[in-house]
Amino acid sequence: MLKPTCAASAALLALALCATPSLAAEPFDAATLSTARALRERALADDTGYDLLRSLTTEVGPRLCGTPGDARAVAWALARLKALGFANVHAEPVRVPHWIRGTPQVEIVAPWKQPMVGVTLGGSVATPPEGIEADVIGVTTLGELALLPADAVRGKIVYFGNRMRRSASVASYGAAVGVRGRGAGEASKRGALGVLIRSVGTDDDRVGHTGGMRFEKDETRIPALALSNPDADLLERQLASGQPVRVRLRDDSQWADSAWSANVVGEIPGRDPRAGVVVVGAHLDSWDLGQGAHDDGAGVAIMTAAARLIGQLPARPRRTIRVVLFANEEFGLSGARTYARDHAAEAAGITLGMESDLGAYAPTGFQSRVTPAYLPVVHAMARLLEPLGVKHTGNEASGDADVGQLYALGIPVFDIDTDASEYFDLHHTPNDTFDKVDPAMVRLNTACYVTLAYLAAEYAPGLGRAPRAAPAAGR
Amino acid sequence: MLKPTCAASAALLALALCATPSLAAEPFDAATLSTARALRERALADDTGYDLLRSLTTEVGPRLCGTPGDARAVAWALARLKALGFANVHAEPVRVPHWIRGTPQVEIVAPWKQPMVGVTLGGSVATPPEGIEADVIGVTTLGELALLPADAVRGKIVYFGNRMRRSASVASYGAAVGVRGRGAGEASKRGALGVLIRSVGTDDDRVGHTGGMRFEKDETRIPALALSNPDADLLERQLASGQPVRVRLRDDSQWADSAWSANVVGEIPGRDPRAGVVVVGAHLDSWDLGQGAHDDGAGVAIMTAAARLIGQLPARPRRTIRVVLFANEEFGLSGARTYARDHAAEAAGITLGMESDLGAYAPTGFQSRVTPAYLPVVHAMARLLEPLGVKHTGNEASGDADVGQLYALGIPVFDIDTDASEYFDLHHTPNDTFDKVDPAMVRLNTACYVTLAYLAAEYAPGLGRAPRAAPAAGR
Repeated sequence: MLKPTCAASAALLALALCATPSLAAEPFDAATLSTARALRERALADDTGYDLLRSLTTEVGPRLCGTPGDARAVAWALARLKALGFANVHAEPVRVPHWIRGTPQVEIVAPWKQPMVGVTLGGSVATPPEGIEADVIGVTTLGELALLPADAVRGKIVYFGNRMRRSASVASYGAAVGVRGRGAGEASKRGALGVLIRSVGTDDDRVGHTGGMRFEKDETRIPALALSNPDADLLERQLASGQPVRVRLRDDSQWADSAWSANVVGEIPGRDPRAGVVVVGAHLDSWDLGQGAHDDGAGVAIMTAAARLIGQLPARPRRTIRVVLFANEEFGLSGARTYARDHAAEAAGITLGMESDLGAYAPTGFQSRVTPAYLPVVHAMARLLEPLGVKHTGNEASGDADVGQLYALGIPVFDIDTDASEYFDLHHTPNDTFDKVDPAMVRLNTACYVTLAYLAAEYAPGLGRAPRAAPAAGR
Repeated sequence: MLKPTCAASAALLALALCATPSLAAEPFDAATLSTARALRERALADDTGYDLLRSLTTEVGPRLCGTPGDARAVAWALARLKALGFANVHAEPVRVPHWIRGTPQVEIVAPWKQPMVGVTLGGSVATPPEGIEADVIGVTTLGELALLPADAVRGKIVYFGNRMRRSASVASYGAAVGVRGRGAGEASKRGALGVLIRSVGTDDDRVGHTGGMRFEKDETRIPALALSNPDADLLERQLASGQPVRVRLRDDSQWADSAWSANVVGEIPGRDPRAGVVVVGAHLDSWDLGQGAHDDGAGVAIMTAAARLIGQLPARPRRTIRVVLFANEEFGLSGARTYARDHAAEAAGITLGMESDLGAYAPTGFQSRVTPAYLPVVHAMARLLEPLGVKHTGNEASGDADVGQLYALGIPVFDIDTDASEYFDLHHTPNDTFDKVDPAMVRLNTACYVTLAYLAAEYAPGLGRAPRAAPAAGR
């Protein structure tokens, strides 16, 4: 554990508040730029990240918080960071929920009997052992449910049919995902017995997309499953017949006591212990159906590989590069929330946070979130990404799910946006496996992050503080 | 039942043997050609086939021989053929095997514990209730297994890793599929406890490809599963570590008594009862994991729609068009074999057989199998397919799996080859669902078959007899 003392924190805070950025056209000296370019080129020829991803998906695989796979992932990460020469490698304990997936059975029994493929949403409760059989009422969205009279829902299974739109932007996921988290709660309030949602995903594979859901305190807990898109189509075709459609579902998922997991941390120490740190993060946990390859083994691989390249430089960077592999992003952000809580006192000493958690796909842009005075520095950094085809696209970065918790502490954050067109074909499904990841994309993302991390670590005045904002939601 | 009498059969046989084709440059008169062109154009604007496919996949779905879905499919087909105005609609009983799929569990237990996704091969036997746990020996092909010393296999689980090559031609399936049918038998002979094969399929989805397998009489029956391609990759990555890889598998599949199914037949009666029939076929059964949309709901839809278009003509065709929807193609061709046995005596009265069983994809060519004297007639037929982008590519048609049984009786056959590049992504998996089928491709295939069926029905001299050959293998 490397925590600054309170005195050091105060000094760093003063530095962060008082420093003003260089307004010179080129804030970086030639040697720094030259090193950044060399790191960028090395990243494009280095398969450390891809090799790490192969190792994680082969030797660990699924690692949902609280499960044995999660514990194996923590052990794997500690061993790998040590083997790669990181300093201060340690685990920071995090309490995580432990939900145990059951084996769902879901079938249409009338008008035309057919089995369907569904997956239980994370946090759902079991049906009675004999299952639930009820007529289905189909709606598109939460808004449409709210317009129904209560007696249209009572005693029914509610089906939410909205289909996620394919898009390069993650915004289409944001527009579709609400029903996963709250569909069951809202249906339960109206007396529904169970909920089926169309998977929040863009593929036509016969696998469901899981993800977290939650009930408010006073809501009756009812089972909630996601149907694969082709099964949602089938259900809609039967509903379109105008005949009552009756579904039977059975599931034996259960909650266990919360468990211990850990954020895994490793550092490339900086040459100036008072200069603070640059945090590069990803989440170590994954949903349990796939191998967590794009989500977020890729982020673990990319950020670790980027930090290691800086660690291989003949000279240390000014600031420490700290890799944080967060526990349990998927099921409530407990790792990032614990990290933000435990490290709030040293927030002023964190110059920058970045996270990779949108798969190893082609970068489409670089967003920053700094006070405007620092934008010339950001633009100078961005110039080094342009040979990678990546432009600075705005100052609206969020830090994404985990590093967003640091942004909420006023820490500047950068996002590398990636082309999400194919990500939601795989996301939270059994198909999120190693074979889906293109090693060239791992290298390209690593090149972006290593360039930014190094420049942020070297730039003496730092990046100031970011305007505070609400933390981003989980993905 | 419309069966010619023996006397009629003899007359037809004499006709078939004695008739010689017209050697005129254009064997068809202008009215026939005009009607054929009109049928072709109508097919391109007619969604009867697609609507049938929607109905079959929505109202029946999976229909493996011997299961309740199979019986529902027979009832569906009888009702639909009647509703579409076919004559002589009837079921011809077929005895079929009845195998009941279990719920397989397969996991790597060492060196790195991970679950795998596998499906039981049709005809496999259960493991003991406690499962089988053994070290894995990996080979690529049956040939490679044969080279191993017996003690390398005894007590092991054999894994066959050959990956099917993606290709527009079905030949790459033929090259890969042998291991599915005989991998378990050959491994069992050498003392293996169980078999895993890499799915015979070209996708990277986390679903296995099922299909039939068989044991010779004296072989010990051992369980056989197909791993999804990503799981086969995972197993190979663990094997590549050089450490012993131990797998546990459990399955409770079982055999039941054989059951009754049926070939479903409907006719568009010809105007000359002595002129014989043109058989257009597809198989009604499907594997149990998907909806049997491409395999072979599409064929059922295409052939039924083609025959119906001829039935809607103001005048009857010379010959009867007979739709035969075969029982159980998938698990031993019992429907086609029963049909060929029961109708052998009227073989001389069957002018032509055609089958659609390679999915609703773009036609890539038209193959015939006639004696060379009839090729000018075939070429004249082919000229009407050219506006559809389909050329006559040879005289090597097989009739495929079911109609191949008619070809074995000397009946001429035509094949429309289709682009199989994507077919084996879905084939025998849960992903063979309605949404994967392009209605334009259903129409295009219907246009090909209706043109050929009509011209063959009208051409007075018929197409002679085909050289006999061994029946094609199942698909």
